[in-house]
Amino acid sequence: MEKSKIQNPKLIDSVLTQLPTINALKQPTSSAWVEQAIANLDIILLDHSHCERKAAGVALNMMFRYPSNTKMVRELTAIAREELEHFELVNQWLERRNIPLAPLPPPPYGAGLKAQVRPKEPERFLDSLLVTGLIEARSHERLGLLAAHCPEPELAKFYRGLMASEARHYGIYWVLAATYFDKEIVMQRLDELAIVESELLANLHPEPRIHS
Amino acid sequence: MEKSKIQNPKLIDSVLTQLPTINALKQPTSSAWVEQAIANLDIILLDHSHCERKAAGVALNMMFRYPSNTKMVRELTAIAREELEHFELVNQWLERRNIPLAPLPPPPYGAGLKAQVRPKEPERFLDSLLVTGLIEARSHERLGLLAAHCPEPELAKFYRGLMASEARHYGIYWVLAATYFDKEIVMQRLDELAIVESELLANLHPEPRIHS
Ligand SMILES: [Fe+2]
Ligand SMILES: [Fe+2]
Ligand SMILES: [Fe+2]
Ligand SMILES: [Fe+2]
Repeated sequence: MEKSKIQNPKLIDSVLTQLPTINALKQPTSSAWVEQAIANLDIILLDHSHCERKAAGVALNMMFRYPSNTKMVRELTAIAREELEHFELVNQWLERRNIPLAPLPPPPYGAGLKAQVRPKEPERFLDSLLVTGLIEARSHERLGLLAAHCPEPELAKFYRGLMASEARHYGIYWVLAATYFDKEIVMQRLDELAIVESELLANLHPEPRIHS
Repeated sequence: MEKSKIQNPKLIDSVLTQLPTINALKQPTSSAWVEQAIANLDIILLDHSHCERKAAGVALNMMFRYPSNTKMVRELTAIAREELEHFELVNQWLERRNIPLAPLPPPPYGAGLKAQVRPKEPERFLDSLLVTGLIEARSHERLGLLAAHCPEPELAKFYRGLMASEARHYGIYWVLAATYFDKEIVMQRLDELAIVESELLANLHPEPRIHS
């Protein structure tokens, strides 16, 4: 399954700059989402907390499923640690605003994307990397929109701070895909999945969520 | 289910010192385990890597299962981050020794303890906290034995460094148990589970493992 192993972090950086970044997203987020989010900052913060915990969980699950993929394990350990740090930071914001940690029904986005992951290996591995990368890319875009439009300067600054890591994360998931699979196959599948990703967001979900 | 909430970290420390520490373990580790481990340092390192990833996974799973237990979420976020750091450090040792990341059949210990967790809430929550605490306590004891007996000074020093966090971890799991449940119930159940824990290790598992 492994096509090649990039052991050199410098090489990773150079691959990263060649990869599609936010352009992988087929459709930009609508202004309707921005309005919905800004009008519901507290719920968005609570949902964001769940998103960060889930992001850590996804990275960890991949390491349980593919424990021998050394390069992947190394990169995802770093991502999981960062997501947990984000989780902690978002939870501090919740505490400051007296928003209790509570379950929140997720929007259909995550399940819709998960349904696209083909069940057989090695397709399952490729699709998991690409879907996770797309979610990170969308989070990056939307945190950027929150940073730009949030009327509370401190909170806007917080979102701006998180954006940088999310940008790295989606790059890493795609570099990993290109490490273990042929680049042409990666690009073609990414294109297919990106279409679905944008379709899932075409109609604004009535409940305000990071991925509504 | 919540008995009380300890919001003050200083209070946690003072509760910690009143709690059973390594004495909770009913039987100390046998010298047979020490000999087996020292004779198989590479396999022990590989198994240790799996243990650290599992420790992070357990903490994260508890947060998924009980997302509204604020105090627990705060403590376990910190633990999960530390376990991932340990995982990274152990993996660096593996790399230095040219030991490839590979799956390793686990010893019966983990499954044996998991079987003791009662399926119904709130017992499931209490038992999960106590069982995880016992595993941390045993890891702490055994890393200490490795630190004391490992013939390689650098590796011995590494084990010594990890011990401090594992000591904190098992204390935190028990403080959490005492936060959400009556202390008497906690102590009684801990006693029962500790007996099983020691029984599971009474006969040395033929494969060298952290919990063989
Ligand atoms: Fe994040
Ligand atoms: Fe991320
Ligand atoms: Fe650890
Ligand atoms: Fe630990």
